[in-house]
Amino acid sequence: MQVTPVPVTKLIDEFSRLPGIGPKTASRLTFYLLRNPAERAQSLAEALHELHQKVVFCSQCFNISESDPCPVCADEHRDRSVICVVEEPLDVLAIERTRDYHGLYHVLHGAIAPTEGIGPEDLKIGELSARVQSSPEPVKEIIVATNPNLEGEATAMYIARQFEGAAVKLTRLARGLPMGGDLEYADEITLSRALSGRSEI
Amino acid sequence: MQVTPVPVTKLIDEFSRLPGIGPKTASRLTFYLLRNPAERAQSLAEALHELHQKVVFCSQCFNISESDPCPVCADEHRDRSVICVVEEPLDVLAIERTRDYHGLYHVLHGAIAPTEGIGPEDLKIGELSARVQSSPEPVKEIIVATNPNLEGEATAMYIARQFEGAAVKLTRLARGLPMGGDLEYADEITLSRALSGRSEI
Repeated sequence: MQVTPVPVTKLIDEFSRLPGIGPKTASRLTFYLLRNPAERAQSLAEALHELHQKVVFCSQCFNISESDPCPVCADEHRDRSVICVVEEPLDVLAIERTRDYHGLYHVLHGAIAPTEGIGPEDLKIGELSARVQSSPEPVKEIIVATNPNLEGEATAMYIARQFEGAAVKLTRLARGLPMGGDLEYADEITLSRALSGRSEI
Repeated sequence: MQVTPVPVTKLIDEFSRLPGIGPKTASRLTFYLLRNPAERAQSLAEALHELHQKVVFCSQCFNISESDPCPVCADEHRDRSVICVVEEPLDVLAIERTRDYHGLYHVLHGAIAPTEGIGPEDLKIGELSARVQSSPEPVKEIIVATNPNLEGEATAMYIARQFEGAAVKLTRLARGLPMGGDLEYADEITLSRALSGRSEI
């Protein structure tokens, strides 16, 4: 006998589709929300609803933002001659937390991962080249701050090849970062050291 | 600099408020949804929205349902002389899966837990007494299927006291070794119960 109401099954299914959430956790979450006042589920629904409606990608750096250009790109005090290339918006957050970086960013939205079918054309690498070429103020340095893992290294190498012979200097974050780690989980001091000790590729 | 858009922070906060989801998981989920088409977040939002709107509690057994009475209580083929008392709607599901039970249910929505401030008056125990007394068909048996832990036992004992001297028989689910289990890994209490409740082959 079908004893679970369809809306309950539906929500369990939706939760299960999220990464790292299995059917057991999904049903726990659903019954938790069911036991709690409707406002809890409503406010989560609202936040989800607003996510894509109010968040856009900055047309210059491709970071997530509520405005285009984003606050960083729009800020006249930032050093426009340096671009820090990262994989994800969370990485921008991590670097901003160090308060040691005052240049601009460029968010690739991933890294080259042939096993997952992610090639350079799936990332904002072409956009980076175009941006550097058409920049009103010459870009002197590109800090390639992709993750210190296989995919991140491959992406850094690919980007370095794109700028071979160009006037721009390419640097990489210092090996203060633990290999196999994830940039967004690095603590501020480690990340700060890695920034100051960056080396030319 | 505030580089994370407010809607993103808001969704991370909302996810973090769910049980078992920390800030790291919450931000992973948020950025996952941000990377995916808006429809993913929308369909989750919709499912959340419908949860409380379309799901009601059955006025007889207090199980969750899309209709009142619920399909079990409305089913004329179910044995109305037996009521199985469980803590949560998920327990009804577990018992239904056995296909061995054909009586009705009564969902308490919790168990007595003094440390968490949950007393008998917070559960549907008074409703159970009223239901048994006013049942058109006499209730012959109440199977108390609360969880085999401290809270479940306390709740079972409390319910048993409520029906002392009544014509209804109160039973408890058998205790013993779980099927497919390994004797050497069974805890002492389970093994002790399995021994004392041993049956002839």
